[in-house]
Amino acid sequence: MTVPDFSDWVCPLPLRNYDRIVLGHGGGGRLSAELIEHLFVPAFGPNVDRGLRDSAILVPPKGVLAFSTDSYVVRPLFFAGGSIGDLAVNGTINDLAMSGAQPIALSCAFILEEGLEMAVLGRVVDHIARAARVAGVSIVTGDTKVVNRGAADGMFINTAGVGVIPDGVDISPDRATPGDVVILSGDIGLHGMAVLSEREGIEFGTTASSDSAPLHDLVRTMLDANADLHVLRDPTRGGLAASLCEIAAAADVGIVVDESLLPVPDEVRAACSLLGLDPMHIANEGKLIAFVAPDEADAVLTAMHDHEHGAGARAIGSVVEDHPGMVIVRTPFGASRVVDLPMGEVLPRIC
Amino acid sequence: MTVPDFSDWVCPLPLRNYDRIVLGHGGGGRLSAELIEHLFVPAFGPNVDRGLRDSAILVPPKGVLAFSTDSYVVRPLFFAGGSIGDLAVNGTINDLAMSGAQPIALSCAFILEEGLEMAVLGRVVDHIARAARVAGVSIVTGDTKVVNRGAADGMFINTAGVGVIPDGVDISPDRATPGDVVILSGDIGLHGMAVLSEREGIEFGTTASSDSAPLHDLVRTMLDANADLHVLRDPTRGGLAASLCEIAAAADVGIVVDESLLPVPDEVRAACSLLGLDPMHIANEGKLIAFVAPDEADAVLTAMHDHEHGAGARAIGSVVEDHPGMVIVRTPFGASRVVDLPMGEVLPRIC
Repeated sequence: MTVPDFSDWVCPLPLRNYDRIVLGHGGGGRLSAELIEHLFVPAFGPNVDRGLRDSAILVPPKGVLAFSTDSYVVRPLFFAGGSIGDLAVNGTINDLAMSGAQPIALSCAFILEEGLEMAVLGRVVDHIARAARVAGVSIVTGDTKVVNRGAADGMFINTAGVGVIPDGVDISPDRATPGDVVILSGDIGLHGMAVLSEREGIEFGTTASSDSAPLHDLVRTMLDANADLHVLRDPTRGGLAASLCEIAAAADVGIVVDESLLPVPDEVRAACSLLGLDPMHIANEGKLIAFVAPDEADAVLTAMHDHEHGAGARAIGSVVEDHPGMVIVRTPFGASRVVDLPMGEVLPRIC
Repeated sequence: MTVPDFSDWVCPLPLRNYDRIVLGHGGGGRLSAELIEHLFVPAFGPNVDRGLRDSAILVPPKGVLAFSTDSYVVRPLFFAGGSIGDLAVNGTINDLAMSGAQPIALSCAFILEEGLEMAVLGRVVDHIARAARVAGVSIVTGDTKVVNRGAADGMFINTAGVGVIPDGVDISPDRATPGDVVILSGDIGLHGMAVLSEREGIEFGTTASSDSAPLHDLVRTMLDANADLHVLRDPTRGGLAASLCEIAAAADVGIVVDESLLPVPDEVRAACSLLGLDPMHIANEGKLIAFVAPDEADAVLTAMHDHEHGAGARAIGSVVEDHPGMVIVRTPFGASRVVDLPMGEVLPRIC
């Protein structure tokens, strides 16, 4: 699939007549058709439904399906390491991957504010197209709604995804079992800090860059190691802390994490200490945690280390029978503290 | 599946502590979990993913899949005959049905404005749950994002749907063939006029009530008549005019419609003549058009007449070889006029 180069994207005719989104671009008439024909089809390629049918048609390989959806409201739209477009593709791919699924198709639905610059939409569509191409997943269907000025904040995106779970794969949070090793695929806190520093104009010395990445191929690599993966989770909103708390609750087990083993990059650590935040609460968009039986941990780690998105993988803790439903962090000084599910989001509109 | 009665919906504990949406309800932490546990799970029933996994798991019957998505931004949220919740369920079901698919699962993703009354969300969720129950389709996965006050207009909803297309069914706009009879399932213009009169506070004597309805069972009935349905389309945004124009363009055929055969209810006709609108441009949310070979039209009409959503079905025109790509309406006085794809939407935020 070839995708046009949108790096110097300017609106092609007849979109050039509109350098901003007008209500008619969401009206289902001629302007909607032009947006599909001159922007979405060139960007998303031949597999996208051209609006001819009301649904895309999929012929899935045999297997059980995974189905997931996420909306993206991140501000700003562009930040170091990515954009709302990258998140919209990678985030939904990762939700599928955390069920062990290989994605087969994505939808992409825009809610646009009247007056949005067409060039901004073009850049985001470019990022979506590139991210989908990198991941090897097609955008096959979509929708565009336009709301009047002031009724939305520029642009929101929803993507839904369908994937196929290979036979025999059974990944679920309630499978966390005492003895399981908790593996983390790499550095934490980068996405949240990238968005925060862009949004607030805060400089922390080194700038964090979002880790937004599709993880389905890493998951395939891990499954190919013939491991029985018990749990997979991508620690996005709420960070590592929320993911671990949810798993502890779902499986009614205790989890112990060794804080000295947590890979926190300098730029994240510096920003967190300045702002009084815990890196375990900061969102990630290209990391996963995996729970595996202890005799399989080495094989899984070896497989992960050979993959670009798992090169920094390491064991960070384990599942215990004690304190079911609770996550405990052991500090480098030998003390312990309880990790709680955050009430809300320490950094709203992070994805 | 039993769904609680939300008709007198009040927030159950611990949601009662929050009578308005706060940013934390979208943060992925404890407040998000409470919203899922105390609102979405009771409403959507046992098939909804409880946030345990990142994806819902589907085991589809054998067949080709249809996959579709739509966002809903209608204002006001509630109107005669329905709400944004009804549209979000029925609209996506209908997109699947227009490919000949029977829906197997829906996703439901909310973008909420900080400060939205919890009771409003509760009512909408109730409408979604009821509409899904009436249609016999489960909501299986979802997402909730909250944006700060002023960054959205109360509530937007996205639903995506997966359906299965029976073997041998091939429905597509480019299959419209000269000679085909154009069948319309019932009265036009009701949804658009219901929203408009609610929004603008206009009284047109009799009040139009939205026709929002799920059409997959009507489509199944039509397919069961052993008919080779060439084209199905639900004339939503842009109305009957936009749907016919798109089909004429896709198949490169002419379409002729007899205006005297168009079923326009009095309340729609009165409002349209007052406002200078064409009923053919007004959105419908529970109607379909079907293109079938002339020797099959009677069988399809008979099958439709036995169904609650097809009782008013009738032939309104035919496909011709002349004027390919163009839709012509013959007026009762023997004149002809060209029907054009509207530029935008005559009534923005109608769905």
